[in-house]
Amino acid sequence: MSEFLTVSRTAHDQLVEAAYRSRGFTADEAAEGAKLAAEAARHGIRTHHALKALHLDHLFGSAVGGCVPGAEIEVVKSRFPGSEIWNSNRKLGQSVAYRAIDRCIELADQYGIGQVSVDNAFHYLWGGGYVMEAAERGYIAYTNCTSALSEVVPFGGKFPTLGTNPHSWGFPTTAALGYPIVSDWATSVVAMGRVQALKREGKLLPPDAAVDKDGKPTIDPNEAVSLLPFGAHKGYAMCLINELYAGLIGGSLPTLRGRPALAPAGEKTGTAFYFQVIHPDAISGGAFAQGRDQMENLKAVLQDVFGHGNEGCILPGQFEAQARKRSDDAGGLHFTAAELEEFKELAEEVGAEPLVPM
Amino acid sequence: MSEFLTVSRTAHDQLVEAAYRSRGFTADEAAEGAKLAAEAARHGIRTHHALKALHLDHLFGSAVGGCVPGAEIEVVKSRFPGSEIWNSNRKLGQSVAYRAIDRCIELADQYGIGQVSVDNAFHYLWGGGYVMEAAERGYIAYTNCTSALSEVVPFGGKFPTLGTNPHSWGFPTTAALGYPIVSDWATSVVAMGRVQALKREGKLLPPDAAVDKDGKPTIDPNEAVSLLPFGAHKGYAMCLINELYAGLIGGSLPTLRGRPALAPAGEKTGTAFYFQVIHPDAISGGAFAQGRDQMENLKAVLQDVFGHGNEGCILPGQFEAQARKRSDDAGGLHFTAAELEEFKELAEEVGAEPLVPM
Repeated sequence: MSEFLTVSRTAHDQLVEAAYRSRGFTADEAAEGAKLAAEAARHGIRTHHALKALHLDHLFGSAVGGCVPGAEIEVVKSRFPGSEIWNSNRKLGQSVAYRAIDRCIELADQYGIGQVSVDNAFHYLWGGGYVMEAAERGYIAYTNCTSALSEVVPFGGKFPTLGTNPHSWGFPTTAALGYPIVSDWATSVVAMGRVQALKREGKLLPPDAAVDKDGKPTIDPNEAVSLLPFGAHKGYAMCLINELYAGLIGGSLPTLRGRPALAPAGEKTGTAFYFQVIHPDAISGGAFAQGRDQMENLKAVLQDVFGHGNEGCILPGQFEAQARKRSDDAGGLHFTAAELEEFKELAEEVGAEPLVPM
Repeated sequence: MSEFLTVSRTAHDQLVEAAYRSRGFTADEAAEGAKLAAEAARHGIRTHHALKALHLDHLFGSAVGGCVPGAEIEVVKSRFPGSEIWNSNRKLGQSVAYRAIDRCIELADQYGIGQVSVDNAFHYLWGGGYVMEAAERGYIAYTNCTSALSEVVPFGGKFPTLGTNPHSWGFPTTAALGYPIVSDWATSVVAMGRVQALKREGKLLPPDAAVDKDGKPTIDPNEAVSLLPFGAHKGYAMCLINELYAGLIGGSLPTLRGRPALAPAGEKTGTAFYFQVIHPDAISGGAFAQGRDQMENLKAVLQDVFGHGNEGCILPGQFEAQARKRSDDAGGLHFTAAELEEFKELAEEVGAEPLVPM
């Protein structure tokens, strides 16, 4: 990883918190935003670290009203003790997501399974980070959300009316594997950012990843105007599921989402989040073969799946665990020289100390 | 649909119930087996109707001890009021699944979300049937299970250590669309039965659907010995998820599952089921745009997704709804002449009246 330089996490967090504070976010929000950014960098999630988070906030968030610093989460009255519904009032998505996962864990401790649904939400960035935290604490966790913009064409269609709509799952496999299995992906084959990158690099798209202005599949990034779901009708269904959750929670038309300028009066243009946590004891039959306990059994299952010549398989979450080990071994967070230049500009902007390599 | 003949559902159910009774199943089990078979036929699910169900039971079920007629479901003691864990003692899978969905609905009515996990299970055949029933009753429902045999090679691996492991979701869209959205698929690109069919027909497999004996992808069904997950690393993760649930519930090694002859003493070779139901009120923020109520909002979202030139898209569950309409319009269930011949043999075998076209 010689292209990466290591910076102190403390210094990183101080700078990122200062940046959030300078935009009006509260100390709690700034800390939660910095935490998710640091965890993303630590786990090698280069698409959702601090620079991306702050850029997204600048374009769609606090600068334009998509996200409201200091907003209070309202818990909507509900008759269901195992469930909560929150109106997040466009509070910083990372703050909302960390708190929702915590609340789901409390509900799972009590009922075996708990869910928190969030209306009027703004980007939580890296869903994998929240389910990973729950998984490390020993739980099964799941989240989905609607992406801010509809960029994905439904299978067999022409016009982008779906978000890239990610799903994230975390499983408590730390005892079995040394790290939690975390499966975290958008339901488009590639992100729109990848299309732009391939265009800049003069490269082609993979097949069935994007369509042109007439809805015809294209591998030319210059012709690509919208994305396609992965896995034909199966990935398409996974993409549609997030719209169904959002529609039931309180999200309005997907094509207006994230586009307040297009929205008539009485419309809503925010996203929705859904979180769910399961206590592993609540699904354990307690009768494992060969006298194993639950976690020993999970380990035996994984050894079977990844034995028999499958030792070279990559597990979901393995790359993140490897990046984390590299970060932790280096005693900080890894960024490229170009990223550190951007952090330098950010530090100047908010009048904070620049990040320097350790 | 001129290749199909229509038979009376009552006559179908009587024959199928007689077949289950002749194998020692109780009246309740026979009725539940006949119901799932009839619903599969009614919705055009030709891979899981009565002939397939009874064939599967003959090969792996009651004839060889994989399924135990009259087995009682034991509810495992649990401290979690929103969750139940059942030891189904290899009871008929359809009976277990219908009852688990009913219990999940009761739990969702009380807690907003409910789950039932089932250890020592035997095939429930068509997961879509159970979540569809819950969705028609107004709920969001989900189920996954481990398939009896490990036939799928993990992404990047060589040896089949995963089941075809289906996922099924149902959503309460009947008010919005006239039918529930039901997404129900295995996580392999194709089923092993499809490989056999293509071999017989002298046709080729789709790319990245199967591997040869060395774990190399092949499109030649004669060379294909194992299957691949759909959607590269994303579908692979969806396939692995079922093994994680099963491992936490009580399932043992995937490569021993459904293969009792290979299993040493102290092993378990059954599958596991997981069911979950959400009450839509428990995720409703109640604040829908333009004064809509929750179901009106879901309808507006779906009209947006499937407007803008996307009117030709197929929705998950649409084919099933169309088949159901054809069946209901014809006043019975549709089978081919060849299938009716097989039903005739079945009727002779159990001493029942043959099915005759209406």
